[in-house]
Amino acid sequence: MSMEMLVEKVKKTGNPTVVGLDPKLEYIPEFIKQKAFADFGKNSQGAGEAIFQFNKGLIDALYDIVPAVKPQMAYYEMYGLKGLEALSKTIRYAREKGMYVILDGKRNDIGSTAEAYSAAYLGESKLDEGTAWGDFPADALTVNPYLGTDGILPFVKQCEERDKAIFVLVKTSNPSSGELQDLVVDQCTLYERVAHLVSRWGMSTKGESGYSGVGAVVGATYPAQLSQLRKIMPATYFLVPGYGAQGGKAEDVAKAFHPDGLGAIVNASRSIMCAYKKAEVAQEEFAKAAREEALRMKYDIIRFI
Amino acid sequence: MSMEMLVEKVKKTGNPTVVGLDPKLEYIPEFIKQKAFADFGKNSQGAGEAIFQFNKGLIDALYDIVPAVKPQMAYYEMYGLKGLEALSKTIRYAREKGMYVILDGKRNDIGSTAEAYSAAYLGESKLDEGTAWGDFPADALTVNPYLGTDGILPFVKQCEERDKAIFVLVKTSNPSSGELQDLVVDQCTLYERVAHLVSRWGMSTKGESGYSGVGAVVGATYPAQLSQLRKIMPATYFLVPGYGAQGGKAEDVAKAFHPDGLGAIVNASRSIMCAYKKAEVAQEEFAKAAREEALRMKYDIIRFI
Repeated sequence: MSMEMLVEKVKKTGNPTVVGLDPKLEYIPEFIKQKAFADFGKNSQGAGEAIFQFNKGLIDALYDIVPAVKPQMAYYEMYGLKGLEALSKTIRYAREKGMYVILDGKRNDIGSTAEAYSAAYLGESKLDEGTAWGDFPADALTVNPYLGTDGILPFVKQCEERDKAIFVLVKTSNPSSGELQDLVVDQCTLYERVAHLVSRWGMSTKGESGYSGVGAVVGATYPAQLSQLRKIMPATYFLVPGYGAQGGKAEDVAKAFHPDGLGAIVNASRSIMCAYKKAEVAQEEFAKAAREEALRMKYDIIRFI
Repeated sequence: MSMEMLVEKVKKTGNPTVVGLDPKLEYIPEFIKQKAFADFGKNSQGAGEAIFQFNKGLIDALYDIVPAVKPQMAYYEMYGLKGLEALSKTIRYAREKGMYVILDGKRNDIGSTAEAYSAAYLGESKLDEGTAWGDFPADALTVNPYLGTDGILPFVKQCEERDKAIFVLVKTSNPSSGELQDLVVDQCTLYERVAHLVSRWGMSTKGESGYSGVGAVVGATYPAQLSQLRKIMPATYFLVPGYGAQGGKAEDVAKAFHPDGLGAIVNASRSIMCAYKKAEVAQEEFAKAAREEALRMKYDIIRFI
């Protein structure tokens, strides 16, 4: 079932982390940008090429030690159609290399439209006579719960039928996440309510590992809530952003895991992508620096689990 | 300021409605699909061409009587890169024809990523030396509030600086919208809380008309809530989905307006796009049927305001 593939890749690499691919142009080494701009022009096509070459270099350096990547869609949408073409190529390349792809789009809408989103990223788009294709064939997608059950079930259907997964926003990592998420309703916060819904939404998608196909996004920046949510949702896989640059520490994210080291996958984006800047090595060494930082992060996290 | 352009177009046409462009292939007349598939193949390119030609026909038939269109992004994302190319062409064509474009993407993320989304749809994406472009230059974007203030402010900045607007989900039109949105916190529902935030977020963006650049999405399917929210947010423009196919009636949506006929824009998608099916006219008459239905809807709504 749908979360099994991720669990398997985490076990195989012994690494419960995911690398966020959020390729702002300022993160990309100059030599990659210069070549892309020389070949395709200093325009969206050049930017798209630079993004893909950067991602490809990172994936080549990471695929044997990191189980998953998480492209953040905003950073591709920002560069228009050529940015989205780079996203499409990145998804395919990462999957070819055996990586699990979590597409971070935080999509949400009413039922009929949620169906279209689920087809776009987890399913297939059919022409009248059954021809199918997909430019964005992810393994999992992040989704927003504000519209309630009927905006989520179309995604769950893909989890049931096509070995896919979703991660629902429960408690996000940003400073103002508490403004709505921490509101108390009948002695229970809104994020706890969402957590109970997440458990219910996932019930039809449990696999051999015991985890459902409906995961939860819970920020590393709120460790007390991580512990609490781990108890409320024992069969839910957590996607944990906020480690590193946003302030979440290894001791904090440890609370997202079960004692066997499963149950969560911790994201880092900038610290891996820009490791070459922090390490003060030549830009050409960006992939090597990313690999070293990914290994450092792995060991930083697993020592506390 | 940012909502002024919409107010102006509503006044000019005397029509407080917006046509949703949600081009499922099954909505598109056969003759358009056949030509597109013959020219470009029965693939995503053919589908993208059919979608654009259908939208173009609708826009040509509507631009002088309807102030705005609302492309639902899911239906373009579903057809991959070629679908998104059709979206890009549709946005440009509608704006060329003088229509206001509300992009329905319900985007949301933490602050730094919300900035990327706001650049993608309301701003510009800059290369290192300042070159800018935009494939999806909308006038307004729908956004989801679950992450709180810091996920909204980057969009508000575009409203302040670039004459743009956003519509924040407050009370959505779908059956399960109450599951979270109606929860009661200190004698006040969650959607009321969001409504108060929307008023606050908009304060720096008020224009001459008195409306702020931060609008609200409130479903026609919940008329009592429409009345209540109209009182809570007097300076907020409402985007009202759910009229027609979803069950909202003209008497219901009337509650979204101020007595001068401003303050809300009512969406219809399927009833306009598929008017030719309901009218049982030849498919070649789809644009004429859409125009007639758009006028019927206009008069249906304004008689109650």
